[in-house]
Amino acid sequence: MNYNDTIVALATASGAGAVAIIRVSGKDAISTTNGVFKSVKSNKSLISQYTHTIHLGHIVEDSRVIDEVLISLFKNPKSYTGEDVVEIQCHGSIYIQQEIIQLLLRKGCRMADAGEFTLRAFLNGKLDLSQAEAVADLISSDNEASHQIAMQQMRGGFSSEIAKLREELLNFASLIELELDFAEEDVEFADRSQFRELIERITFVLKRLIDSFAVGNVIKNGIPVAIVGEPNVGKSTLLNALLNEERAIVSDIAGTTRDTIEDELVIEGIGFRFIDTAGIRETKDVVEGIGIKKTFEKIEQAQVVLYLFDATQFVNNKTAFIVEIEKIKNKYPLKPLLIVPNKVDKLSPSDLEQIKVTLSAVEVSKYILLSAKENVGVDALKNQLLSFVNTGALRNNETIVTNTRHYDALLKAFEEIKKVQYGLDSNLSSDLMALDIREALYHFGMITGQVTNDELLGNIFANFCIGK
Amino acid sequence: MNYNDTIVALATASGAGAVAIIRVSGKDAISTTNGVFKSVKSNKSLISQYTHTIHLGHIVEDSRVIDEVLISLFKNPKSYTGEDVVEIQCHGSIYIQQEIIQLLLRKGCRMADAGEFTLRAFLNGKLDLSQAEAVADLISSDNEASHQIAMQQMRGGFSSEIAKLREELLNFASLIELELDFAEEDVEFADRSQFRELIERITFVLKRLIDSFAVGNVIKNGIPVAIVGEPNVGKSTLLNALLNEERAIVSDIAGTTRDTIEDELVIEGIGFRFIDTAGIRETKDVVEGIGIKKTFEKIEQAQVVLYLFDATQFVNNKTAFIVEIEKIKNKYPLKPLLIVPNKVDKLSPSDLEQIKVTLSAVEVSKYILLSAKENVGVDALKNQLLSFVNTGALRNNETIVTNTRHYDALLKAFEEIKKVQYGLDSNLSSDLMALDIREALYHFGMITGQVTNDELLGNIFANFCIGK
Repeated sequence: MNYNDTIVALATASGAGAVAIIRVSGKDAISTTNGVFKSVKSNKSLISQYTHTIHLGHIVEDSRVIDEVLISLFKNPKSYTGEDVVEIQCHGSIYIQQEIIQLLLRKGCRMADAGEFTLRAFLNGKLDLSQAEAVADLISSDNEASHQIAMQQMRGGFSSEIAKLREELLNFASLIELELDFAEEDVEFADRSQFRELIERITFVLKRLIDSFAVGNVIKNGIPVAIVGEPNVGKSTLLNALLNEERAIVSDIAGTTRDTIEDELVIEGIGFRFIDTAGIRETKDVVEGIGIKKTFEKIEQAQVVLYLFDATQFVNNKTAFIVEIEKIKNKYPLKPLLIVPNKVDKLSPSDLEQIKVTLSAVEVSKYILLSAKENVGVDALKNQLLSFVNTGALRNNETIVTNTRHYDALLKAFEEIKKVQYGLDSNLSSDLMALDIREALYHFGMITGQVTNDELLGNIFANFCIGK
Repeated sequence: MNYNDTIVALATASGAGAVAIIRVSGKDAISTTNGVFKSVKSNKSLISQYTHTIHLGHIVEDSRVIDEVLISLFKNPKSYTGEDVVEIQCHGSIYIQQEIIQLLLRKGCRMADAGEFTLRAFLNGKLDLSQAEAVADLISSDNEASHQIAMQQMRGGFSSEIAKLREELLNFASLIELELDFAEEDVEFADRSQFRELIERITFVLKRLIDSFAVGNVIKNGIPVAIVGEPNVGKSTLLNALLNEERAIVSDIAGTTRDTIEDELVIEGIGFRFIDTAGIRETKDVVEGIGIKKTFEKIEQAQVVLYLFDATQFVNNKTAFIVEIEKIKNKYPLKPLLIVPNKVDKLSPSDLEQIKVTLSAVEVSKYILLSAKENVGVDALKNQLLSFVNTGALRNNETIVTNTRHYDALLKAFEEIKKVQYGLDSNLSSDLMALDIREALYHFGMITGQVTNDELLGNIFANFCIGK
């Protein structure tokens, strides 16, 4: 790592906006900016201004004025990175953004790598590693649940809990290692019953955190829902109906999630990812082999299977529909299956009754009579989808692990702690037990970043965007 | 206009970035933000903090923490709009941006209309109208020349010149109108020779500004260059070769101009817009009528016509190529035509000689031997394109008019001034002359915004983005 240079990058979203922010961090951040800045109000150098103040002026190169800007000053250590930081708020044209960045590069700054501002914040002790990782999660969070988890993790979350347990464990490790020096005298500096109590506490916490991952992972990435159904049975209408009540103002802002990931949907703060499958019926034709496989693969990934069909077609194709439903049920007996006849508003009362009777006879699965267009059954469908998700932990504000890296480290720490416990139970010699404790400490440290290496940091921060 | 409410909008580019800025302006901007803000460091209300200071804390709704943010305070009149302004710098996820904006809307703010921050700045006298218009130009500028013009206009540019002349003219108008009160006494309060001198100065300035529009418009919108040439003659390779040397760092930033407007190119700070035409040869087939018309329409709009073809095909199709060149030349005798045989690196010396001899015989037009792939002739082509543009005015830092609305107002003012001049020459009575002067004043005022109306303002600011 090179702490001696000064980095620069665009910190706001790429593209043109009303304004943009260019962030500069490092020991020369203020002096370099001062060299290309002409204040409107004062002749004072930026270097002699107070931290957390804003200054209006122009970015100039020789006699050429590049832009009128606002300069925000953050003096170390009172900044995001812990270094001197300058934020240049310029007009949001791409041309101006680039001109200013290029000017700063010519003046000796270096283009920041992905996540390098946050990396420096971590290296300067402003954040621990799991907090740094939460920054990236926070930026990519697109619903209430994933946002809440990322926010909790960024504000300390479980890493402070882990750090505290690690401290206590470290204390015992030292005492046990001390015993090794007095091995021949057979003394016990570490109180074994206190130690056992600590190990039990650690086991309890680790178990809880490990268990939370299943929920956490699903919440972070959205709950996958496979929609099995022919084209034109009303999938888009259904998605719109589900979406409608949620986002009144959202549409004022361009580039919302829905534009990019067509079928992601947030219901009461929980993200659902709808996976479109063409349906299993078509597999009777030529492309049978491939078609069937793909559909079943998608269903495999789903947490919920939703079978949507056109209710007006039901009476004439009853057998075909039932065969398809049975096919899915038999293949995935444990997966929640939701049967959704759409367009029920167009049915005669007797047809409607027939559907009800037939579907009630299909065991294990639930059905919801829907008219997406007339907004009938939409709320029932929402509630049914939500009920498939165990969000008790989330609602209770419990700590939830969402990061695979943390999950792996927790699993490994848990294994080592079990070994320590076994060592305690079987009166293992101090030297062997010390080794297991050190291993557990190592894995704890991997979460908080107290133990780290360049490769690990490289992997973590490569996933950040430039400018963060 | 409603000055009493407080507006809010996202000010940075839409989409996810490391950080985003939400701008709040109006009399309740600070108190409303203070109501949802919890400082990390101090218990002091934002209301009692100094202007131009930055505060770290959390945006909260009841007990829920939405984000960790930086608050920048700008107290009226020391702000962009002239009102109290708060800028909330939050994490750049779309979800967080929306949550904060929605929270502020619930707390009584109103979503800002397009350009409303700048409109308020204008209404509060922070900018005149042509400066306000330059803000939009500045944001959309994507090359050095258009940026320079917008910057000049935003910093006062010709509107201060116009405002000064208007002031002087207004002075004379008052004196001449005063003469009307003493009509029977036949006095002259306004010195006619001084007045004549002023009218001459105004005429001179107006003429210069009106003439600058042709250049200004071209620079603002890019110089249109029609490329006549079959597919696969190397157009993309040529554009890449032209582009290569210009933008080393540009590619680091996603969403640069080239991604959106495929064929716009900046050469030494001047924008060129390449218009692809399929060529005129194909017009021998069935679609003759439409095809030929479209191509010629495109050439009509172009300032330069570039005829690109595959040099390796030349020897065998000599006549066809010459016919096509002659066709363009005859149709547009005044339009600069540049003939560009590409892939000359693949020619034998004798074929190369033949091309040279043949093209030299084609009068009036110039040719450049090119190998876009081998970077041969690229510089010569650049220089040739630049030489077609009269950028003298630009290079001399003269005031240039780029805005059609200003151009129209200048033309109308010019007409009225000519009438005033005629009135002076023909000893027109004061009352009639006063009418012409008032008309001229009106059109001057339309540029600076001293004369304005809701419809005009509506039209101007509707072209702004929301958040500006």
